[in-house]
Amino acid sequence: MRIPGPYLLFLGDTPHRLDAKTASGILDWRPELCAGQCRLGAGTVDLGLPDMTPAAAVAAGVRTLVIGVATFGGAIDDAWVGTLLAAIHAGLDIASGMHARLGEHPAIAAAAREAGVRLFDVRHADTRFDVASGRKRSGLRLLTVGVDCAVGKKYAALAIHRALARRGVAADFRATGQTGILIAGGGVAIDAVVSDFAAGAAETLSPDNAPGHWDVIEGQGSLFHPAYAGVSLALLHGSQPDALVLCHDVRRTHIDGYPDYPLPTLAACIAANEQAARLTNRAARCVAIALNTHGMGEVERADALARTREETGLVVFDPIATGADAVAETLLAGTCGLPQASPHTLGDIA
Amino acid sequence: MRIPGPYLLFLGDTPHRLDAKTASGILDWRPELCAGQCRLGAGTVDLGLPDMTPAAAVAAGVRTLVIGVATFGGAIDDAWVGTLLAAIHAGLDIASGMHARLGEHPAIAAAAREAGVRLFDVRHADTRFDVASGRKRSGLRLLTVGVDCAVGKKYAALAIHRALARRGVAADFRATGQTGILIAGGGVAIDAVVSDFAAGAAETLSPDNAPGHWDVIEGQGSLFHPAYAGVSLALLHGSQPDALVLCHDVRRTHIDGYPDYPLPTLAACIAANEQAARLTNRAARCVAIALNTHGMGEVERADALARTREETGLVVFDPIATGADAVAETLLAGTCGLPQASPHTLGDIA
Repeated sequence: MRIPGPYLLFLGDTPHRLDAKTASGILDWRPELCAGQCRLGAGTVDLGLPDMTPAAAVAAGVRTLVIGVATFGGAIDDAWVGTLLAAIHAGLDIASGMHARLGEHPAIAAAAREAGVRLFDVRHADTRFDVASGRKRSGLRLLTVGVDCAVGKKYAALAIHRALARRGVAADFRATGQTGILIAGGGVAIDAVVSDFAAGAAETLSPDNAPGHWDVIEGQGSLFHPAYAGVSLALLHGSQPDALVLCHDVRRTHIDGYPDYPLPTLAACIAANEQAARLTNRAARCVAIALNTHGMGEVERADALARTREETGLVVFDPIATGADAVAETLLAGTCGLPQASPHTLGDIA
Repeated sequence: MRIPGPYLLFLGDTPHRLDAKTASGILDWRPELCAGQCRLGAGTVDLGLPDMTPAAAVAAGVRTLVIGVATFGGAIDDAWVGTLLAAIHAGLDIASGMHARLGEHPAIAAAAREAGVRLFDVRHADTRFDVASGRKRSGLRLLTVGVDCAVGKKYAALAIHRALARRGVAADFRATGQTGILIAGGGVAIDAVVSDFAAGAAETLSPDNAPGHWDVIEGQGSLFHPAYAGVSLALLHGSQPDALVLCHDVRRTHIDGYPDYPLPTLAACIAANEQAARLTNRAARCVAIALNTHGMGEVERADALARTREETGLVVFDPIATGADAVAETLLAGTCGLPQASPHTLGDIA
């Protein structure tokens, strides 16, 4: 699956920027892909892109309308259908990360067939995957793992990928969730894979690669999440990471939406993830902590970063506020816990 | 879903008894359901049932051909199709626990429609499940967990259920795999559930129950399996077991089919399962070890049981050779690691 750019970001009529986080994410990490925004009302959130109708977007060279807004329950809003049909008639492909499939919406599916455009339901994994083989693959891998869901695993991976790429290191960002897939233009929605094949799907996501190449893989869930830990473990085993980066939001006190589940300590999270990861890669080590400090003042942020550095002895960064240069330097130096004694896992980089 | 008996057990042409474990399992626990076996070659494993063609089976009163043999990856073997079509033409329903759906095989689906027979794809969970809530449920639960796949988790659960039922304890066997479902006549094929919902599916399998009621849940995979650990973890979290029974085959030296993956120690397995289980039930304890001693002489078996008892300090049994009376007594006495100090998890039994 390859979603053609540039994109027209569809924002519906939501006034809330949080509802448009898929669109914001694409704009933050692939601004060159984002030609315009499409909004249904004056009160709709504004990402600062040129407003375009589908027809104008086609004239400007846009190839795909991306639904960049989430709805409660993940359904396709009836108010959107007219605009989506107009986009299809204008010749745009449509990409969506929602639970509801575009391809199962009768009017949208029929119009797409008639117009010969494609519908990308990126949350759904229609590929068939094999059972994981457990075979160690060549190349280097980093996986972001979480203390909880929604703590910044995708942004941490994107920031690390950007920091490596800026240093001329061969690296790929590997997406495992809908927004990540729209940003990368491809990937596997790992939580949508039948559980027997989830680790196998994770294996296909980062195939054999050159010795010095880094796959930077977007994590999902948390080993301490009562609903999603199985997804996290399958992704961890299939990814065979050499390096783990643990992502955290210091203001979180319990698993989001599960008030009876207190957050584990960073030490417990690191230990559990390293222990599990070593089943498929004995060299796996946690090399850094990504802190989500969104909304903090400068002093509060510096304090949070310093305290976490002291607590863990690891590189600590915020993917947005500080960037991931320190992580890239650590990976390239082969220091800070990375297995210098195992040259086959560090390849030509060390 | 109710699969009509008696069954004709279809064994394909496999010479390996392990590949025929679905058929063996049904025969061991529901012999009254098994009228005959259907084998494609002289070298095929022999379960000791009368050999029957589909037509002869119909004449003998058989209602359903059950595919009792597994293939790696779960595909329908081309060599089977002729016999399956003959069974359909003879009027038999077909039940399968494979990943590949009978209903999606064009020739089989068309023949079944034409003949008016039913196709039961028991591995597939066509129900929609919710995301796990993590809410603690009433009643008592035991989950069998494994050092590896195919070490006797289903047999251990069936034997424990039988031992509890014989003591007049309210108990249900809860099936999570295709053979278990064919034996129990219901359940959830947990490894066929989309991974996001696997823990949620496990929650529905053992709903709230009376304080003294035991759900004895069939485990899947192993936390140390490079392909299936995510399934095992989701089942562990959703089951919220009070008691764990670890299943092992002392002759196994590595993960079956994965020669690069040595078997973990029993101590490591117990620790990893207890640690993970305590996320959703802080009282979870391993109370017994089920040893698969199939094919051992009496002295060798007694020695294996004694050595494992000494190694772990737990009740050790073989589901077939010794039965699970000792486990039932342990559960009812509330001894041997079960959380006597937590009356809400032991209910009225302790």
